[in-house]
Amino acid sequence: MSAEPETEFDHHGDVSVDETLLSAELPGSGRVASPEVAEYATRLGDDALILSQQLGWWISRAPELEEDMAIGNIALDLLGHARALLHFAGTATGRSEDDMAYWRDEPDFRNCWLVEQPGNDFGDMIARQLYFSAYQVELYRALESSADESLAAIGAKALREVSYHLDHAVQWTLRLAGGTDESRRRIVQSLLDQWPYVDELFIDDELTDSLEGIAARPSSLRPGFDATLEAVFAEAGLEAPAAKPAACGGRQGRHSTQLGYILAEMQWLSRRHPGAKW
Amino acid sequence: MSAEPETEFDHHGDVSVDETLLSAELPGSGRVASPEVAEYATRLGDDALILSQQLGWWISRAPELEEDMAIGNIALDLLGHARALLHFAGTATGRSEDDMAYWRDEPDFRNCWLVEQPGNDFGDMIARQLYFSAYQVELYRALESSADESLAAIGAKALREVSYHLDHAVQWTLRLAGGTDESRRRIVQSLLDQWPYVDELFIDDELTDSLEGIAARPSSLRPGFDATLEAVFAEAGLEAPAAKPAACGGRQGRHSTQLGYILAEMQWLSRRHPGAKW
Repeated sequence: MSAEPETEFDHHGDVSVDETLLSAELPGSGRVASPEVAEYATRLGDDALILSQQLGWWISRAPELEEDMAIGNIALDLLGHARALLHFAGTATGRSEDDMAYWRDEPDFRNCWLVEQPGNDFGDMIARQLYFSAYQVELYRALESSADESLAAIGAKALREVSYHLDHAVQWTLRLAGGTDESRRRIVQSLLDQWPYVDELFIDDELTDSLEGIAARPSSLRPGFDATLEAVFAEAGLEAPAAKPAACGGRQGRHSTQLGYILAEMQWLSRRHPGAKW
Repeated sequence: MSAEPETEFDHHGDVSVDETLLSAELPGSGRVASPEVAEYATRLGDDALILSQQLGWWISRAPELEEDMAIGNIALDLLGHARALLHFAGTATGRSEDDMAYWRDEPDFRNCWLVEQPGNDFGDMIARQLYFSAYQVELYRALESSADESLAAIGAKALREVSYHLDHAVQWTLRLAGGTDESRRRIVQSLLDQWPYVDELFIDDELTDSLEGIAARPSSLRPGFDATLEAVFAEAGLEAPAAKPAACGGRQGRHSTQLGYILAEMQWLSRRHPGAKW
């Protein structure tokens, strides 16, 4: 920074680093999403937004400083994806990314139940990261070839990042499974506890059917996900979890009680000062 | 990520992204700090560590998604500085960065009082960022020419980042001061409330006197700090805060009650599993 701060402010003006990042994340920016594409982008954006908020809890609470940074970086990657997706979704109705994040109520959120479950146990958080990152790798790889250029651009950018997220979760799963009896017992329990929320990620419905070639068909992502998990469980010497799917309804706006707490924390400041000029 | 996760794990092996970052942050790595240099590095590292933890609280609570990312990035920058400084400080006694962060008790922390004060009001957080970033810009610019090559390397790396932190805090100060009557009233109050903790940053003592040419003499940083703040207050049309300095004692391990809560949150997981193989 120069000795004269003013020149620095003038230099930056009103364009912040993050706005630059956002436009870089979304080369298709400026395009307007159709209502159906917006609904689909909202599902993906809400998944990333809610998981990002959940991981934020871990910053300052991780068992190692290095891990504190790793989780923080993952949370910020996801927040970047959420911003790009919700920005795009908002173009269908003229809403900003902040309107989408702070001024929708619980029934308007389209995130899956996996990301809204409590994850304040380290093993639970890692198990969720393992499952969700393995899903996101398949999702964004498929979106790279979407007929919608904005979704394709977001997918290409996000794929590189979620591939690191998956690797991180895999490393921890192996480390916990191969650590002490206690750490192995706990990660096994966490992998079992999170498993019921996996199926929801792969359910096709009218919306995804109507977006053939634009959306990634959820059911088509399952084989790649299963192959990844099979390889991880094999390397960790773990059985695949045996637990029945939970009845989830996130894509239709039906949520577990936990989401209310997450939204309250995320939205309180913006809502306390409606339309505030910050 | 390739279709075969194993190859990806083999590729990454045990070297994580963050270990790579850390060594990049600390070219002088491998050198052993003298007890005096270690004590000085601990002061700087604890300042960065505690402020990073405090900013972590804001992730998921900021008024805008963009701001959520900006604060998160600043918190991670500071955590990176803390890791490099505490890693270096630990070489004097053979302690790891994690030992330094998680296994010291409150009287062993050397952070200033400014970073441990409550900052869960947005204006308070911005005021603290303004003051502390303005100090850190002067600090790290001075350390660039330290006779200690590790401190000089850390200073050079950190200066680029804290210059952005200062610019961010300045932008918000101007935005709040120039926003609504309410936002102006609140930032003025916050700037006043944080001011008593500023003087501690610039107090010379036996340790800094004994490290002539190695440490940045605190009192020598004050003119640059004052010039920065004067320019900001002038542009914001604000009076310089008039408040008496608080009696602080952070450099000698005397802390306000707030630090205990911060450490409890930061240290609970590591301490719950002493020596855990994660």
